[in-house]
Amino acid sequence: MKAPHPPLDGITVLTLEQAVSAPLCTRHLADLGARVIKIEHPAGGDSARHYDGAVRGLAAHFVWLNHGKESVALDLGVAEDRALFTGLLELTDVVVSNLAPGALGRLGLSPAGLVEEHPRLIVVDISGYGTGGPLDHKRAYDLLVQSEGGSCAITGRPGEPAKSGIPIADVGTALYAFSAVLTALYDRERTGRGTVVSVAMLDVIGEMMGFALNQVLHAGAEPEPVGMGSPMVAPYGAYPTADGHTVVLGTTSDREWRRLASDLLCRPDLAADPRFVRNADRVRLRDELDAVLRAWCAERDLADIQRRADEAGIGNARLNGVRDLARHPQLADRKRWREVDSPVGGVPALLPPVISPDWNVRAGRVPALGADTDAVRAEVAAATGCTPETQPSPATTRRESRR
Amino acid sequence: MKAPHPPLDGITVLTLEQAVSAPLCTRHLADLGARVIKIEHPAGGDSARHYDGAVRGLAAHFVWLNHGKESVALDLGVAEDRALFTGLLELTDVVVSNLAPGALGRLGLSPAGLVEEHPRLIVVDISGYGTGGPLDHKRAYDLLVQSEGGSCAITGRPGEPAKSGIPIADVGTALYAFSAVLTALYDRERTGRGTVVSVAMLDVIGEMMGFALNQVLHAGAEPEPVGMGSPMVAPYGAYPTADGHTVVLGTTSDREWRRLASDLLCRPDLAADPRFVRNADRVRLRDELDAVLRAWCAERDLADIQRRADEAGIGNARLNGVRDLARHPQLADRKRWREVDSPVGGVPALLPPVISPDWNVRAGRVPALGADTDAVRAEVAAATGCTPETQPSPATTRRESRR
Repeated sequence: MKAPHPPLDGITVLTLEQAVSAPLCTRHLADLGARVIKIEHPAGGDSARHYDGAVRGLAAHFVWLNHGKESVALDLGVAEDRALFTGLLELTDVVVSNLAPGALGRLGLSPAGLVEEHPRLIVVDISGYGTGGPLDHKRAYDLLVQSEGGSCAITGRPGEPAKSGIPIADVGTALYAFSAVLTALYDRERTGRGTVVSVAMLDVIGEMMGFALNQVLHAGAEPEPVGMGSPMVAPYGAYPTADGHTVVLGTTSDREWRRLASDLLCRPDLAADPRFVRNADRVRLRDELDAVLRAWCAERDLADIQRRADEAGIGNARLNGVRDLARHPQLADRKRWREVDSPVGGVPALLPPVISPDWNVRAGRVPALGADTDAVRAEVAAATGCTPETQPSPATTRRESRR
Repeated sequence: MKAPHPPLDGITVLTLEQAVSAPLCTRHLADLGARVIKIEHPAGGDSARHYDGAVRGLAAHFVWLNHGKESVALDLGVAEDRALFTGLLELTDVVVSNLAPGALGRLGLSPAGLVEEHPRLIVVDISGYGTGGPLDHKRAYDLLVQSEGGSCAITGRPGEPAKSGIPIADVGTALYAFSAVLTALYDRERTGRGTVVSVAMLDVIGEMMGFALNQVLHAGAEPEPVGMGSPMVAPYGAYPTADGHTVVLGTTSDREWRRLASDLLCRPDLAADPRFVRNADRVRLRDELDAVLRAWCAERDLADIQRRADEAGIGNARLNGVRDLARHPQLADRKRWREVDSPVGGVPALLPPVISPDWNVRAGRVPALGADTDAVRAEVAAATGCTPETQPSPATTRRESRR
């Protein structure tokens, strides 16, 4: 056995990021052991710092997405700060950005130009709608891309579309960007060269909508949202129980339907009823079957229903709130919680979802804005062989000329 | 410049998969150039083949998730097929599985055992709830894990929870598994060794709920679903337009609110109203502001609203259906559609979301069940230096003894 190690040890990531997509991508790089240096504007930094003050004054989103990173406060429009950024690039393997459309270009940091100058560099450019097309430069917040991408239309109830509570356009984009960095690192091991990778949020939603697109492209019917049900199978849904909980259960196949009817509901008549034998018919008669399940569940306690469903081999779950997830025994018993440090002290955080006995997870602190600026400045000065105070360099010259 | 190439060229993936999570993971590996051999039971294969017949007789989900793979029909309980599988393992870099809990073990294929026997092998083991804890062996379909993980409780409307139409537990798990393979491939380049990686769907939802967990853990209040709105900011929502569309727009900051009120609505009185200056107050008075926006949008056409919102620097989108996504100009203009082959002829498919000028995307066909069984059988026979017909090997001996 090799000793457990952080697989991205030795990799340095420079990130020009805000909000959710790039920050989640780079947090997972930090989890795997990369050094992540978050460049923030000195005037307020990442906008997510100010979403709320839920975590003893820190923002819930910011704490979720930024532990394990360093924060360096730089105004890239100012020569001295720009020189530090340029120096940092020499130490960098990966640049990630999700700034507003055109912002990188206005800073004179075109992804292609960066890689031309630094052939081993990997640059990941996250955008809302990609390059070209009528929406090219449009603002792209999660809800906007969920709406544009059609995913709200298959969520909620008919006539009452809803966004996914999980910011799926942001989170999905983060995970594709994360995979892009990993692919490029692997490729660099074999070719010796970096690359530019682009990920657009609309393309991410498009990918995730692949099943619904196929239904529309070929079968023609616009899918309807079905609340807690499934458009594909029936019966399947959320049913209140006698003890005030809600159970979610249903069938995914004709065979499961027969088990559900005969073994769980003790209704061999339903299992044998030719009207319900085929899933397509059950989907059509969804309301009738929902009423049967609703009545059956209303007379029983949650634990009783779940035990019986398990015995009958019928998938089931409890409809949980966020508080239930926070104290879910399946997370606690498997020791999925840890503590990370922050400017307001230790805060709980879940371990990342990918587990290997051979890999360590790095637990780092949530950085205050600019917490690492001085240290990184000194480090770059040392690495470039000159301290700004004693030895003029092109960088310091530009800074001086600006004063 | 290096020539465009598929970055995972030369990597072989063996996948024991069904439904969505593992198939999406391995499809992305195929997109990047890996050879993906999908092992399916001869009696029906992947259950997703039978979800519907939307794509000229093929299932919408199956077509979405399986192009670019080979299908080899094997019953791993039968000695001859098991021998072929064992032979295939010798040619394999990565094994992915999302079979039912315990299924791998019953086949004598423990992930740790596989890596012990093949030290360069990477094994990714996808489960619903991980190892240990009260839900260890429970069935885990997407809706069940969305329910158990609390994400339905923040989707929909108060008292009417809803699942995300995109199967976010499945899709998110696919993307974490995909990143796990890429991390392990990179690590293998540096250490020479493979590993076992586990990904549990509940942990994936837990990660994606990080912001909501922080709100509950620290601020105490259970978040409520807000339909098409945002729990964090207001006004923000979906509003019907005069020409029968629905526009989605809103503000993400106090500064944007002032722009929205004064520049878009031409209501400097609202922009100056102290009741609405702070986002926290606007969230509390959400209904009042929604009514203003609703009335304003109801008198204008979609295109007019979007043009004015763009000019005012206010994010906006059209609430699209799936059909709108299928013909979205932002996908068409950027040439995001291609054709892939299938047993029913060419079918449209979106390109994957990660784009690099240095990487080719492999376009492969959707395989019929067992389409590649004979070819792979011959290939393994050749690779192991014996053809079953002429030269007995331990594998063929086992097969013979069973007859």
